[in-house]
Order: sequence, then C-alpha cells, then structure tokens
Amino acid sequence: MSVLAFREIRAKDEAPVFDARFRAEFEALLRWRRDVRRFRRDPVPAELVERALDLACLAPSVGNSQPWRFVSVESEAARDALRANFRRANAAALALQDESRRALYARLKLAGLEEAPVQLAVFCDETTAQGHGLGQASMPETRRYSAVQAIQLLWLALRSEGVGLGWVSILEPEAVARDLAVPEGWRFVAHLCIGWPEAETAVPELERAGWQARTGAGRELVRR
Amino acid sequence: MSVLAFREIRAKDEAPVFDARFRAEFEALLRWRRDVRRFRRDPVPAELVERALDLACLAPSVGNSQPWRFVSVESEAARDALRANFRRANAAALALQDESRRALYARLKLAGLEEAPVQLAVFCDETTAQGHGLGQASMPETRRYSAVQAIQLLWLALRSEGVGLGWVSILEPEAVARDLAVPEGWRFVAHLCIGWPEAETAVPELERAGWQARTGAGRELVRR
Repeated sequence: MSVLAFREIRAKDEAPVFDARFRAEFEALLRWRRDVRRFRRDPVPAELVERALDLACLAPSVGNSQPWRFVSVESEAARDALRANFRRANAAALALQDESRRALYARLKLAGLEEAPVQLAVFCDETTAQGHGLGQASMPETRRYSAVQAIQLLWLALRSEGVGLGWVSILEPEAVARDLAVPEGWRFVAHLCIGWPEAETAVPELERAGWQARTGAGRELVRR
Repeated sequence: MSVLAFREIRAKDEAPVFDARFRAEFEALLRWRRDVRRFRRDPVPAELVERALDLACLAPSVGNSQPWRFVSVESEAARDALRANFRRANAAALALQDESRRALYARLKLAGLEEAPVQLAVFCDETTAQGHGLGQASMPETRRYSAVQAIQLLWLALRSEGVGLGWVSILEPEAVARDLAVPEGWRFVAHLCIGWPEAETAVPELERAGWQARTGAGRELVRR
C-alpha cells in the first residue's frame, strides 16, 4: 500500500455502517491497547509497520496540514544517544518525586529502549506550508495535536496486529531533535518503542506496579 | 455503563485476537471518520454520547493521569459566547491569510457552532495529582497530548455509531476558559461539535472545497 492509497476512496463509494459486533471488537481493542515496556526481541515485519503508518496518516490534522514526521531510530549511535537522554531525564524526574515514592519510582520499568526492535521518534513540522495555516492562528499547538492523533491511530493499528507500543516521554526534547539531526523547525512529540509484547494484559502496567490505577478521573460531564 | 466498568476486565481475561475482517472495518472507520461541519439539527441520544465518552476515557495518559475534562456547552449564553469568540478569532485568522486566498477562506464553512446539537469543550487539568507527575517532568505538554488521544477515541467511537464530530480550533483559548468558568488550572484543548452529519464522505471537506487536499506529507520514514 502506498501513499496513493489515500486517494483511492472517492465520494461515490458508499458510507460503511458499523454494527454491534464491530463496536464490541473496537471496545476490546481500546481496552487491550496498553502502553508496553516489556518487549520480546524478535523482529517486527517491516510491511506490518508500514501498514500501520499508512493508517496513522489517515488521522485528522488541522487544515489538512499533516504535520507528523516519523524518524526510524535504527543505528546503535542514535539508540545510544536516546538511552543516555532517557537516563539523564529519568534521574532528574526521580529527584522531583516525593521522598515517600522514590523507591517505588526507581523500581518501575518505564521504557523498552533496550529491547524494542522498532523505535520511531515522532516530530511535528512547525513550518509546513501544507494547509496554508488554516485553523492554527490562535492555537498553534493544534499542529502538535495533529501528530498526537496520528500516534493514537498508529498505536491502535499495531495492537490490532498483536504488536505493542510504549510512549516514552521521559526525554529532553531539544536533545532528541539535536541527536537525531532533524530539520530545523521539527518539534519532538514522542518516542515510540514498538515490538511484540512479552505478555498481554488489559490492566495498565502502572496499575499493576502499584503506582497509579485508572480511576474515573475526568469522566464526569461538567455542564455550562 | 459507569466509570466502574474500567475495572471490570482483569488480567485473567484472555487477550483478544483481531482478524483481517475486523482490521478492514477498522480501516474503513478511519477513512470515513472525517471532520464534520454540516450537521442535521436532530438530537443525539444522551446515552450514545455517554457510551462514546466511556470509550474515550480508555485513552492512554501520561502516568495514568487521565487529565481530560469535558464541559458540555448547553446554555444559549455559553453557546453565544463561543460563537462570538469564533467570529473574533476567525476575523483575525482571515486577515493573516495571503490576499490571494482570502476570498476562498471567507467562503469556507469552518465550524458547526450554530447547528451541532451536542457541543463539548475539552480541557486538560494541568494541576491533577493523579499519576504523581510521572512522565511529565521534561515534557509537561504530554498532559495535553493525553487529552488529545481521548478526543481521537471519542471521534472514532461516535463515528462507529454514525455520529459526526468537528474540531473547532479557531478560538481564543483563554477566552473559552473564562467564558465557561472552568476551574483554575484547566487549559483549553479543543471545542467539539457533535451531531448527525448532513452527508457522509470519505473526502475531507477542505479537499472538496479546494483548500488543501490530503497528500503523502509526512508519510515517508526518515532513517537515523
């Protein structure tokens, strides 16, 4: 499937109707999505990652700007730089934790940077002319939000093939951009570790580790 | 379904395996998602919106912080304030456009703020203690990114029931927070118009209007 596939479906095609069975499976996909930090080292077929990226690029974007940019981090030098960055940022983050939580924090496994066979750094091109600036004047952060939506679709697409993803945010963002030598104007959004998970679960790793369970936080509708 | 449903699935349950049929339907969901600005005025059942919000809250969040907050904008006063905000922000955005594009810009329908029966303003609680700050020290924007992921799931969940969503970003964010009188520390992320679409299409409205087509922008993998 190539990028041309974006243009295959035209308005003449009939809109799909989704049934209860699809919706139940979709709900299962969301419940079993999970942030994965424990990966097997077996390779993930390149075609599978390419298919998931095609789906990710169907994400909505402000003004159709499609500002997401994906960097495949493959060389040992680039991976080493990311791991060193993570160690620095994680040491700083540990020091910010309440003393009562520091021992637990230090025991958490927060990234799969050693094992994950596929690693993608995601950037937002803040300078793209595509979309002619539409929708971004008062809220330029919507460009980054577009890249984040692509990440969510990538995550779901990979999980639908049994592949796990873990989002690493404990990084110094400017150092990532520098170490990966990306073009001026690309802003770092996320580093994604991708691979076959060691185990499948519907319960977040941070909940199983006793750090923070899912709650109903934010679920209630405020009315105005 | 209540927020307690989050806790129903335990690790003992068996992980689902998704087949090619599910993946084809999932791809159709992404292709027919669309940003909708033309709504019918018929009401959307409250239970349908509640179900979609339940699914949205299954989104990943940094440190399990679940910082998304949803404000249902229902009163005429609140809706009027948002429409006035949009008119101001849109006039400013129009003035920033190249002269050659201004006439086309002025003809675009950029929001369904008049017609959409359901309108949700989404905020990020920047002050939540949930998650104990994990993952946010070097990239605090990941809190907003968590709310954005919930929005993407809400969008897909609604579309799976035939309901459309349009993301309005042409707004002065501080004025939205002030007009909706949300708690101190909630940052405005998006205003969502929700309703039954006038028409279904797989082609973005901005593409049909001749503003900006989808392209392959950002699809190519950069290697490092």
